[in-house]
Amino acid sequence: MSETPGPSSREFDAAFRQAFRDLVLWRRDVRRFRRDPIDPALIRSLLELASHAPSVGHCQPWRFVLVETAQCREAVRSSFVRANAKALENYDGEQRAQYARLKLEGLEAAPVHLAVFADEATKAGSGLGRQTMPQTLQYSVVGAVQTLWLAARAEGLGLGWISILEPENVCRILEVPDTWTLIAYLCIGRPVEEHTDPELERHNWQERLSTERLIFKR
Amino acid sequence: MSETPGPSSREFDAAFRQAFRDLVLWRRDVRRFRRDPIDPALIRSLLELASHAPSVGHCQPWRFVLVETAQCREAVRSSFVRANAKALENYDGEQRAQYARLKLEGLEAAPVHLAVFADEATKAGSGLGRQTMPQTLQYSVVGAVQTLWLAARAEGLGLGWISILEPENVCRILEVPDTWTLIAYLCIGRPVEEHTDPELERHNWQERLSTERLIFKR
Repeated sequence: MSETPGPSSREFDAAFRQAFRDLVLWRRDVRRFRRDPIDPALIRSLLELASHAPSVGHCQPWRFVLVETAQCREAVRSSFVRANAKALENYDGEQRAQYARLKLEGLEAAPVHLAVFADEATKAGSGLGRQTMPQTLQYSVVGAVQTLWLAARAEGLGLGWISILEPENVCRILEVPDTWTLIAYLCIGRPVEEHTDPELERHNWQERLSTERLIFKR
Repeated sequence: MSETPGPSSREFDAAFRQAFRDLVLWRRDVRRFRRDPIDPALIRSLLELASHAPSVGHCQPWRFVLVETAQCREAVRSSFVRANAKALENYDGEQRAQYARLKLEGLEAAPVHLAVFADEATKAGSGLGRQTMPQTLQYSVVGAVQTLWLAARAEGLGLGWISILEPENVCRILEVPDTWTLIAYLCIGRPVEEHTDPELERHNWQERLSTERLIFKR
């Protein structure tokens, strides 16, 4: 009897790994976008790929909302303005001045606005894997966002994640079901400039921590 | 006067994008590992790359704990056994039998155990970006996990995320600071087999949702 062949595999070579490393290093949180429109088919293909991210119990809880109307976009931008003004109050002196100078979003110019939610009521996966760590449902959506981020950068697209928002307001503005949690509000478009160092590092807000400080043993 | 040259860029070609797509499609939650040890330098380089994930306010809140002692590993495995027995109680009939048949972890054979935490008390980033959405600190760690997952697969390594655990117990077992939150407990090693379909899909626990059901417009 001949042996049943095992499932085939896919190997990646050193050249790919080097390019993947470059992809990770060149991924940035982008705040300055060109206004050129992006082909909707490209966005759709990126979302399709992002949907292959891991999810707890294979529950695929990501829900992608393309925010297209001027009215919704303006309301979200107002939410950012309010939340950012409030955040500024937490800083004093030179740090306050520095915060005020930072550009923290690209809502005005970005051609694509994408709100990403977790469907907390999904029946998919039948609850597997999230009895003791229910937050893994939300974490699954973050994995899809990071996959999208890398895939977008490979297409020459920049992505910016705006967390300075009132999440309940954004849910109301976008009229999503009560059981959806806002995970990320993303701007996508062609970046005006490219960098390997994060904006907050370049403007001396926060330096990179050495890997040694991040690894421990038990 | 000559113009200051802009920062250089890094472009990725169609062949890379196709290979990246393959990487995303061949990434799996692995539960069957070979026992071959993994070079610690390889793990370190993967963690260094994962540390280039995005983080809110560039706060880099990921803390990686390599779990090496038999005592710690056994205690974590006991935590899984308890949590899994309890999870089983949530299912009835055929679904219960199906759950009981699933292999949900590779704790026994995996050569590398890695617990990943979020340092909720980090001063890095000075709180920027997380006044209204504080959970973005935890989300940042998930982005690092997904980056690690893809980078590991590119090296031919499998990774499995175990969420069927008692998170407070795992913190106690590993004696981490009170301000650290367990995000993920990961097994890493050479996989026994490779697949493009998730285990839970292959064993008819949960099918893949069509992309159409996941994209909305406003």
